[in-house]
Amino acid sequence: MKFFYSPNACSLGIHVLLEEIGKPYERLWVDFSKGAQYKEPYVSLNPKSKVPALLRDDGVLVTEWPAIAWYLAKTNPEVNLLPSTIDGEVRTLELLDYMIATVHMRGFTRIFRPAMFTPTIADEPAVKQTGRDIIDTGLKLMAQVLGAKAYLLGDYSIADAALFFLEHWAVTRAAVQIPPALEGHLERMRARPAVQRALAAEGLV
Amino acid sequence: MKFFYSPNACSLGIHVLLEEIGKPYERLWVDFSKGAQYKEPYVSLNPKSKVPALLRDDGVLVTEWPAIAWYLAKTNPEVNLLPSTIDGEVRTLELLDYMIATVHMRGFTRIFRPAMFTPTIADEPAVKQTGRDIIDTGLKLMAQVLGAKAYLLGDYSIADAALFFLEHWAVTRAAVQIPPALEGHLERMRARPAVQRALAAEGLV
Ligand SMILES: N[C@@H](CCC(=O)N[C@@H](CS)C(=O)NCC(=O)O)C(=O)O
Ligand SMILES: N[C@@H](CCC(=O)N[C@@H](CS)C(=O)NCC(=O)O)C(=O)O
Repeated sequence: MKFFYSPNACSLGIHVLLEEIGKPYERLWVDFSKGAQYKEPYVSLNPKSKVPALLRDDGVLVTEWPAIAWYLAKTNPEVNLLPSTIDGEVRTLELLDYMIATVHMRGFTRIFRPAMFTPTIADEPAVKQTGRDIIDTGLKLMAQVLGAKAYLLGDYSIADAALFFLEHWAVTRAAVQIPPALEGHLERMRARPAVQRALAAEGLV
Repeated sequence: MKFFYSPNACSLGIHVLLEEIGKPYERLWVDFSKGAQYKEPYVSLNPKSKVPALLRDDGVLVTEWPAIAWYLAKTNPEVNLLPSTIDGEVRTLELLDYMIATVHMRGFTRIFRPAMFTPTIADEPAVKQTGRDIIDTGLKLMAQVLGAKAYLLGDYSIADAALFFLEHWAVTRAAVQIPPALEGHLERMRARPAVQRALAAEGLV
């Protein structure tokens, strides 16, 4: 299995899941600083030009964070990364979709790449502020879902790996304050050996 | 079960699925022209202020298009709206996440609500053009996935209900050309009685 990533991109969350599972995989850096996502050979493999992507041993490429996480959880049921009830599946998807499509792709991306949102450089501070507002609302909602539990769904799941990369971005890349309840979650995540291995492998510690 | 929608919003795809299933449900219009999504009673029920939302009979609210579709498919297995293999589930999620998070939320939303993306009115045409480019890439990718099949995964699934509302938007709300392969898909969708009932109920025919 080949895992395509970029250091400190959203692929960090998938990296954590691969480490939780602990089976061998090959880690391949798509070098954004060289625009490698838009060039051969990557662009033919994944025309979406995004990470994360997972090339399965049978040659099938899986893209989209929630789909990759689902694949990893379902093919490694013994690691218990996903509840097995319909209610649990639905709750997990609801959390993942909100964290990826809204908090990441409409929030953080506005801060990291404001030029994707506005052609006017003078408007970039306003675009970033909109991003911060979306992140703020999103993280508060996640703090409410977490409540006094250790992990979003009670037991550790793929949803926590998504929340982790958002928390990590807030603290290290976006200077966004995270709600107190999420500070505890971030600490618990950082204490997990799988998280420590993923951070170290990406040069983030 | 209560289904919260707005006519010709992305809730149209969920509306189609409810009609495919054919069990009774209550349809509740969240009136965007009055900002009802940001006001009581809706905002307390769904602080995300979005449609679609589904209030289950047990009082649990389900939000996020892919999660709602998953819930409907999994609780009505006899309607066969979702493949039952891991591969099929992963492929479905990959399609849904791309169609919702990228094609809808980064493409069409730029056209429908450019002011969400830029504070400068003079930049709105540029924002809309970026939206059209994202939609164009997205629909071409979906046309490739469809190929010569009748439906995205071969058999009809929740992924087709997502593709349907995107196609319907392209044709009726965004004046975006859809690839020839998708014209056939749109026709097949429009020929389904469930689609006709949903369109009629939303005043779209
Ligand atoms: N919808 C995608 C989003 C992935 C995404 O936005 N990845 C970013 C890094 S966090 C990326 O690859 N950006 C490269 C680019 O846009 O050039 C998913 O869920 O995986
Ligand atoms: N991530 C949400 C997106 C839903 C969404 O964007 N809904 C739009 C209508 S298509 C909406 O309710 N907009 C109201 C608003 O933003 O004021 C989902 O997957 O359901």
